[in-house]
Amino acid sequence: MKTLSENRCYGGTQGVYFHASTACSCGMTFAVFLPEEAQYGPVPVLWFLSGLTCTHENAMTKAGAQAWAAEQGIALVFPDTSPRGDDVPNDEAYDLGQGAGFYIDATQAPWDAHFKMWTYVTEELPALLAETFPLDMSRQSIAGHSMGGHGALTMAMALPGRFRSVSAFAPICHPAASDWGRKQFAAYWGDEADWGPHDATILMKDKGFDGPILIDTGTDDQFGDLLGTEHLAQAMAEKRQEGQIRLQKGYDHSYFFISTFMEDHVAFHAEALYR
Amino acid sequence: MKTLSENRCYGGTQGVYFHASTACSCGMTFAVFLPEEAQYGPVPVLWFLSGLTCTHENAMTKAGAQAWAAEQGIALVFPDTSPRGDDVPNDEAYDLGQGAGFYIDATQAPWDAHFKMWTYVTEELPALLAETFPLDMSRQSIAGHSMGGHGALTMAMALPGRFRSVSAFAPICHPAASDWGRKQFAAYWGDEADWGPHDATILMKDKGFDGPILIDTGTDDQFGDLLGTEHLAQAMAEKRQEGQIRLQKGYDHSYFFISTFMEDHVAFHAEALYR
Repeated sequence: MKTLSENRCYGGTQGVYFHASTACSCGMTFAVFLPEEAQYGPVPVLWFLSGLTCTHENAMTKAGAQAWAAEQGIALVFPDTSPRGDDVPNDEAYDLGQGAGFYIDATQAPWDAHFKMWTYVTEELPALLAETFPLDMSRQSIAGHSMGGHGALTMAMALPGRFRSVSAFAPICHPAASDWGRKQFAAYWGDEADWGPHDATILMKDKGFDGPILIDTGTDDQFGDLLGTEHLAQAMAEKRQEGQIRLQKGYDHSYFFISTFMEDHVAFHAEALYR
Repeated sequence: MKTLSENRCYGGTQGVYFHASTACSCGMTFAVFLPEEAQYGPVPVLWFLSGLTCTHENAMTKAGAQAWAAEQGIALVFPDTSPRGDDVPNDEAYDLGQGAGFYIDATQAPWDAHFKMWTYVTEELPALLAETFPLDMSRQSIAGHSMGGHGALTMAMALPGRFRSVSAFAPICHPAASDWGRKQFAAYWGDEADWGPHDATILMKDKGFDGPILIDTGTDDQFGDLLGTEHLAQAMAEKRQEGQIRLQKGYDHSYFFISTFMEDHVAFHAEALYR
């Protein structure tokens, strides 16, 4: 693992690191914020999965999360959103290929050689983090934006006991019924029968989540129709799932929306992590 | 004036606007954050001048200032750092030409046709803002980073009565004695005898500022030698200037440093603006 940068930030350290990923068969970059408390012992972990076109950097620089993580003594992890590099397949569209890993393991060529973001984020990266940083891996929560909200919700439900709480900003809620999902799942996997375990609405109907959920989505989200918030809202209500879906008046899909409500999300996770 | 974007943010609006500038003889982009209170009447204004290579966008997206401005009911203005465009002269160096206006009015060719950032920021843009947005121009303060810290300090001292308070993150304190200053002043102006009115340390010795000053600079700033903090610190102490210079242990020149202390700066200005 190579340190690309480390900057002092809110009394802690915002680092960016690079390593050779076995899962993705390429070099991968990720960012970790360690609060001041990490000097004295392991701290709880909040994952933040980003959306289409993003890298590890967008949320690290624009979400304002470090302010609240520092206040709560929580580490932040910002993975990339896909494998990268000249040897990694890509597509002209912004929503397929590099920058659009969709947090799944591809089985179809040409994607299957590198696009293993499920395994990367749920197995390889946690193992690396656990042995490298002072993190208390028994206290993890997860959040995400848009495609990353889809990733956070599906990981939280598919891995019971892993995450104490899950939150999302404008998540893709029902990819199996959206142009943000059908196209990518078809390309990466092929058979529609396999999609269910990676669709938050279907997972909610089947299993739900053993902890609290917080979702914020703007009423003026320019991608509102692609998100399918109504499907997850219905499924959560039917399931009697502990959680809340907040429709925030006038907000859109941008980081201005995310940063506005980041304090709420970090406080929400802190409550679960320190319970 | 053309609206390029408006996003809901912390209950207010983060807008980006474009207009034809008379001072700079080119199109100019700037950003304004209006807090929720601006719906009901004019609000105080905090200017933020950015550093080398930046546009209106860097501080708008990475400084986390809107959180605190919203809390205090203060508008934020983010001007660009230079004229821009294919017709505007430039230089291969990152610290001369576009992105490096240094908040002065050039008198030397080829810069003198467009590089009038002093007039732009102190006359043209305030006039446009006053007639366009619900701003209380009798209550203004100013802040900046690096080259923008130089701009903020020099404007505050050169325009008595305009700004109630001034703050800076890692400002260029004594450009007349720094490679961040001598090169640009020589190119834009020529004669060294004219530099004093645009050097914060010289202005401090000559006039000082009729209000409080707050300066934060990291002890690990990678450009520390170029900033000349020691010259301004000495001048402030000699002048018995109301203010504080804080050397922040371990912090560098980045927006991770800026965002860490932004809450303090906005609160500092709020105290002056609401006095």
